[in-house]
Amino acid sequence: MADKKAVILLSGGLDSATTLAIARDEDFECYALTFRYGQRHKREIEAAKKIADSGATAEHRIIDIDLAQFGSSALTDSTIEVPKDRGDLDSHAQIPTTYVPARNTIFLSYALAWAEVLGAFDIFIGVNATDYSGYPDCRSVYFDAYRRLIDLGTRPETHIRLLTPFLHLGKADIVRRGLELGAPLHLSWSCYEREDQACGLCESCRLRLSAFRQAGVPDPIPYVAQRGGKGE
Amino acid sequence: MADKKAVILLSGGLDSATTLAIARDEDFECYALTFRYGQRHKREIEAAKKIADSGATAEHRIIDIDLAQFGSSALTDSTIEVPKDRGDLDSHAQIPTTYVPARNTIFLSYALAWAEVLGAFDIFIGVNATDYSGYPDCRSVYFDAYRRLIDLGTRPETHIRLLTPFLHLGKADIVRRGLELGAPLHLSWSCYEREDQACGLCESCRLRLSAFRQAGVPDPIPYVAQRGGKGE
Repeated sequence: MADKKAVILLSGGLDSATTLAIARDEDFECYALTFRYGQRHKREIEAAKKIADSGATAEHRIIDIDLAQFGSSALTDSTIEVPKDRGDLDSHAQIPTTYVPARNTIFLSYALAWAEVLGAFDIFIGVNATDYSGYPDCRSVYFDAYRRLIDLGTRPETHIRLLTPFLHLGKADIVRRGLELGAPLHLSWSCYEREDQACGLCESCRLRLSAFRQAGVPDPIPYVAQRGGKGE
Repeated sequence: MADKKAVILLSGGLDSATTLAIARDEDFECYALTFRYGQRHKREIEAAKKIADSGATAEHRIIDIDLAQFGSSALTDSTIEVPKDRGDLDSHAQIPTTYVPARNTIFLSYALAWAEVLGAFDIFIGVNATDYSGYPDCRSVYFDAYRRLIDLGTRPETHIRLLTPFLHLGKADIVRRGLELGAPLHLSWSCYEREDQACGLCESCRLRLSAFRQAGVPDPIPYVAQRGGKGE
């Protein structure tokens, strides 16, 4: 069947669940890669497992990388508060406290190592510029630089593409695409704050809720509280 | 005293021992970074510890990264034999079986994360193009691509330099520079094959021995056997 392999970064969130669905839809033999990097929201990893198991995945690897020891992000350092409200979510003016230094650079490096060993031609990463506005390593120029690094840092016969299907897509479009492809969005997890039910208040929950609202469908995961609601 | 910080990749080999000595000599506050990546030659890590302890090092971190699980290199996969003789060590024609996919890319990504958190302006990596002829991620163009990635993948106020002082230096010149600076070369380790005494036969030992011979000084570490000797 599928004779083309791809490595898919699978965080367990909405975007990566849909990214995996795209790779499957394009007939890739899918190798899913998840990182346990000291993030607070460990339920994401459980979500990644369920998403990988929900369809044909050739292999799913969970790699431990200790970013927490470097500290300095609200996502890995429990002494920094995760912002509940940034006011203007579209602001590019400042880098959020949830920014983890070099996170995507490290993730992609592992994906590259695995892709080269597998002989995979493609790496999928479901980053979304809207979502991560202000993160330097979620910009188009950054991924272009990474592509050049791949070309120069691998064997001459290795030609690996780095695919970012959602980079310029609105979050609601990602939800729509996910639904279209039958991605298991009900298994995905985005909340930074809670593990049992999504808080509905953190930045990640708000972006997600807003996307489902715009897409005109209810978010299938359980929430404790929903901010704003109809009026927002 | 030192108010400028640098992250130094410290493998425990000759080149990294000398690189650390350079950073110290240039009055950097030194943060040494070593990886336990499933390499066969674990004595290198012990060597890194001793080298870090041998002088002023602000901090030494040893990070576990599981490259062995990706396999496909003689350095991490015990089913692949480490070459004892490549014939022409200067040959650029093929990539050695000791090449570990994306190794430098992963190492530098961690160094970058740490540097950004520390507010360090410099990352030192003691790679040497002669030594690693044929490794795509030891070439000048590769490091230039990495520099661009650093610029684009970090906060706008972050300006991290990536320094490769030995990239175009002969191995004998590295030995000479190490001796000049009083680098603890007697604590460094290069052998791919043995842990008690260096084998003197593997590619890494042969490069090292040849460098000391060219520099006109004896290698201070213990060897089981030395190939070639005077005549080589």
